Amino acid sequence: MGPTSFVQHQKLVFSLDQIAGLIDGRVVGDESIKISGVSSLLNAKDGDLAQYSNVRYRAQLTNTQASAVILKDSAVDDCPVAAIVVQEPQLAFAKVAATFDRRSLTPEGIDATAVIDTSATIGTDVRIGPYVTIGPKVVIASGVELCAHASIGAHSSVGEDSSIRENTVLYHDVRVGRRCVLHANVVIGTDGFGIVADEKGNLSQVPQVGGVTIGDDVLIGSSSTVDRGTLDDTVIDDDVKIDDQVHIAHNCFVGKHSILCGRVSLAGSVTIGQHCVLAGAVGVAGEGPVTIADGVQIGAMTFVSRDITEPGRYSGSTIHTTNRAWRRNVLRFNELDAIAKRLAALERHVGVARPSKPSI
Amino acid sequence: MGPTSFVQHQKLVFSLDQIAGLIDGRVVGDESIKISGVSSLLNAKDGDLAQYSNVRYRAQLTNTQASAVILKDSAVDDCPVAAIVVQEPQLAFAKVAATFDRRSLTPEGIDATAVIDTSATIGTDVRIGPYVTIGPKVVIASGVELCAHASIGAHSSVGEDSSIRENTVLYHDVRVGRRCVLHANVVIGTDGFGIVADEKGNLSQVPQVGGVTIGDDVLIGSSSTVDRGTLDDTVIDDDVKIDDQVHIAHNCFVGKHSILCGRVSLAGSVTIGQHCVLAGAVGVAGEGPVTIADGVQIGAMTFVSRDITEPGRYSGSTIHTTNRAWRRNVLRFNELDAIAKRLAALERHVGVARPSKPSI
Amino acid sequence: MGPTSFVQHQKLVFSLDQIAGLIDGRVVGDESIKISGVSSLLNAKDGDLAQYSNVRYRAQLTNTQASAVILKDSAVDDCPVAAIVVQEPQLAFAKVAATFDRRSLTPEGIDATAVIDTSATIGTDVRIGPYVTIGPKVVIASGVELCAHASIGAHSSVGEDSSIRENTVLYHDVRVGRRCVLHANVVIGTDGFGIVADEKGNLSQVPQVGGVTIGDDVLIGSSSTVDRGTLDDTVIDDDVKIDDQVHIAHNCFVGKHSILCGRVSLAGSVTIGQHCVLAGAVGVAGEGPVTIADGVQIGAMTFVSRDITEPGRYSGSTIHTTNRAWRRNVLRFNELDAIAKRLAALERHVGVARPSKPSI
Repeated sequence: MGPTSFVQHQKLVFSLDQIAGLIDGRVVGDESIKISGVSSLLNAKDGDLAQYSNVRYRAQLTNTQASAVILKDSAVDDCPVAAIVVQEPQLAFAKVAATFDRRSLTPEGIDATAVIDTSATIGTDVRIGPYVTIGPKVVIASGVELCAHASIGAHSSVGEDSSIRENTVLYHDVRVGRRCVLHANVVIGTDGFGIVADEKGNLSQVPQVGGVTIGDDVLIGSSSTVDRGTLDDTVIDDDVKIDDQVHIAHNCFVGKHSILCGRVSLAGSVTIGQHCVLAGAVGVAGEGPVTIADGVQIGAMTFVSRDITEPGRYSGSTIHTTNRAWRRNVLRFNELDAIAKRLAALERHVGVARPSKPSI
Repeated sequence: MGPTSFVQHQKLVFSLDQIAGLIDGRVVGDESIKISGVSSLLNAKDGDLAQYSNVRYRAQLTNTQASAVILKDSAVDDCPVAAIVVQEPQLAFAKVAATFDRRSLTPEGIDATAVIDTSATIGTDVRIGPYVTIGPKVVIASGVELCAHASIGAHSSVGEDSSIRENTVLYHDVRVGRRCVLHANVVIGTDGFGIVADEKGNLSQVPQVGGVTIGDDVLIGSSSTVDRGTLDDTVIDDDVKIDDQVHIAHNCFVGKHSILCGRVSLAGSVTIGQHCVLAGAVGVAGEGPVTIADGVQIGAMTFVSRDITEPGRYSGSTIHTTNRAWRRNVLRFNELDAIAKRLAALERHVGVARPSKPSI
Repeated sequence: MGPTSFVQHQKLVFSLDQIAGLIDGRVVGDESIKISGVSSLLNAKDGDLAQYSNVRYRAQLTNTQASAVILKDSAVDDCPVAAIVVQEPQLAFAKVAATFDRRSLTPEGIDATAVIDTSATIGTDVRIGPYVTIGPKVVIASGVELCAHASIGAHSSVGEDSSIRENTVLYHDVRVGRRCVLHANVVIGTDGFGIVADEKGNLSQVPQVGGVTIGDDVLIGSSSTVDRGTLDDTVIDDDVKIDDQVHIAHNCFVGKHSILCGRVSLAGSVTIGQHCVLAGAVGVAGEGPVTIADGVQIGAMTFVSRDITEPGRYSGSTIHTTNRAWRRNVLRFNELDAIAKRLAALERHVGVARPSKPSI
């Protein structure tokens, strides 16, 4: 087939007072200035709009090459160019920035190359791109976008206004809620990794016949993987935000409004509470199921091997030092128990009372 | 092209005595009960079959809403509903569960949209899905399934009854054995990461002309990567089971019946013995090639930097604590050698003999 | 569509003097010997060429089954077979090895199934494979290869002679330089992971309207992800080499000639200098932006949480020990500050001066 045409967000140009209207702001300076993009104070060039909300960046404001700046009333005097005054510059700026996004949506309708099983149900106003495949009994709700090469397995569903990006694969029996974004190359519903050995050590996979349920307003970053449950579903609850290359194993539950940063790994049957934040490369895995309470924040590269029952901040990694110092210290780590015992013996020897154990 | 039709495993309904026949079990109760799915004791609903094999879950058994339960003879009296009595409930249940899997296989035959080089050899009873690409001199054995968007590079082969899931890419000169499952978005055969710098620090890639050999009965999870060897092959031996997002670099060898859990990383030229288990996010990388003996088990998030020559269990990570405690302890880690030396000096000063070093 | 034909690098056979001509070498022995492949000394078989440059492998040389060996003049007497004498055997061998690579390039031209927006600009001598999609205003320079199922988003560009492998996705506003290789299943330009919570803890994504700029001669391994910037671009400078499953978050900058090994993770706004080497699974993430100076080398699985201002080698992981020893030591890690304080108290008690703190 020959060249076709994508829908394109035109690069728009607005006047300053048009933008002020969008965000309910007040213009200081020339209302007719043309704005064709957004940028940071530091890198802005002619035609750009920037924002200023933190005095730490005052020097960037006074030197900016932006055509205009969104800021608070108190900063107007420091601004060398035109301004839009609002109460929350960051929020207002985010709204304007979204207007300049040049992403090209998949065109409305169903591309002629999409392979759709006759038993699938497709809603209205969908955007189904080239080479998408949709299996039997699938339900695609209204307003859904399925980008090029996405694959939706049997009995799976995608809720209203969700977007499934390029090459993303939903296996069978996967339910995705409304207003979700699953970025490119995500895989949802791979068999949980349940391996059993016979008496000779030959391995086999335990059948994994549960599915995956993903709530509303969930974001999943590129190349993340969520495995199906063994019997029941793996569940990602509403408003969970997941970064790139995160791995969630079978039968996990991730509570509402939690954030999983890049490369977090959850082993099988881990439960994460609501309003948690797991920083980059955190791993959660125990001998049995591990449960983390609501409101827990975990520092980058920490290994969590047992339950956390109280909200709060936790960490556990080591940090860099020179290679030379590290070579000595890392070996001492493996003598640490002996060191502690020698210290206790010495304390007893010289008659010093051992202080009480620190709270952990 | 218009809608097409996938092959679908029909949702089956069995009577209890039909299921008992499958697993050589004895029915206690009404043999005509209809079973339409499998579930856990806890979440089962009408029509579901569950299993019970551990007294820890006795309360779940006595309260289950399942229509029937697979269990041992000794548990019959505790079961409030119909039962199938067997000797190994878990094993029997796995067999039944597989029957209810609703995955939809790629239809038999070769989809009209598959792009297949004329020099490729394709066996009988294959299932080649939409938009698959197959390069020159490829050999696809009988019974193989290649799901939508899979790409098989030149001179590669896939053995009998193996399944290559959606978007998975085999580069050239990759050999996959029989009865393997490669899940979605896997990449096998990327160039090994051999980078050399010239005297000015300009970098170039050493050509990587080895291939990858994968044995029989190998499982590889979604989004895993296995790089090709520099001259010889990277080798994954028979019956190795690999989870999602695992990375295996050039010239690695993974021995028979070993298990690599999610996000394990092996650097170049690592050898893993037979019957090993590497838990989640383990990294193996040394200054030279690292070799791990047969029968080694390594705990989650451990860094292995030198050979392990004896079977057994090994670990090496740190674990979480409160952020407040961690901030103090993590800095002390980088003083550890100094602490040990101060302790030794103090022992000498007060005349305490230093105990012998602990075995590591 | 029926079977089609890929371009194939024929398996070539050269005589030894033809190869010597390629690398400016001198043949010792029969110049007419036929060479049909390259291998290591250890695994070479009849028809193979190997190389020898390190006396550590002398026994492999004297026992090799290769038909010929590339070596230095000083090694001729140890070689049991024909030889090609050069000054730099490794370099010469790499050149010959590349000749035997059996990779099959995408055929020249534009495959009939490629979906190309009418506003895109396509250069000469391109290789655009099956099922590729190209969005509006895209610029594909001359000599570019886009392999099967690659997707190029709106306003993106790919520079001369770059190769984008199977299933790789460029989102919109991504600029890739000349002579780059992006391996399979890479995603460039995913929205940066900027999440904000309202007063009730409901989460939303900050619009990410920056792009990604990738310089010339950049290598990116399979399944790696590079996120777009929030306002400005995420930048990978010239001659950076990136392994598989690396993650680079929004607004990072990676300096020229740096190497990022498998599974390195950079959090948002990290700057890596020039000529750096980050070993496998290194994580860089701080409370604010983290900057690493030129010429820094970081050991595997190290967590870098603050700036590194001096060139040199740094590490910070722990390493494996027996599980038994680890269980004791890992708990002591979380008492480390208390241990250090007890030691200091003891030193004061017995009147020993505390030595100065070690340099870190």
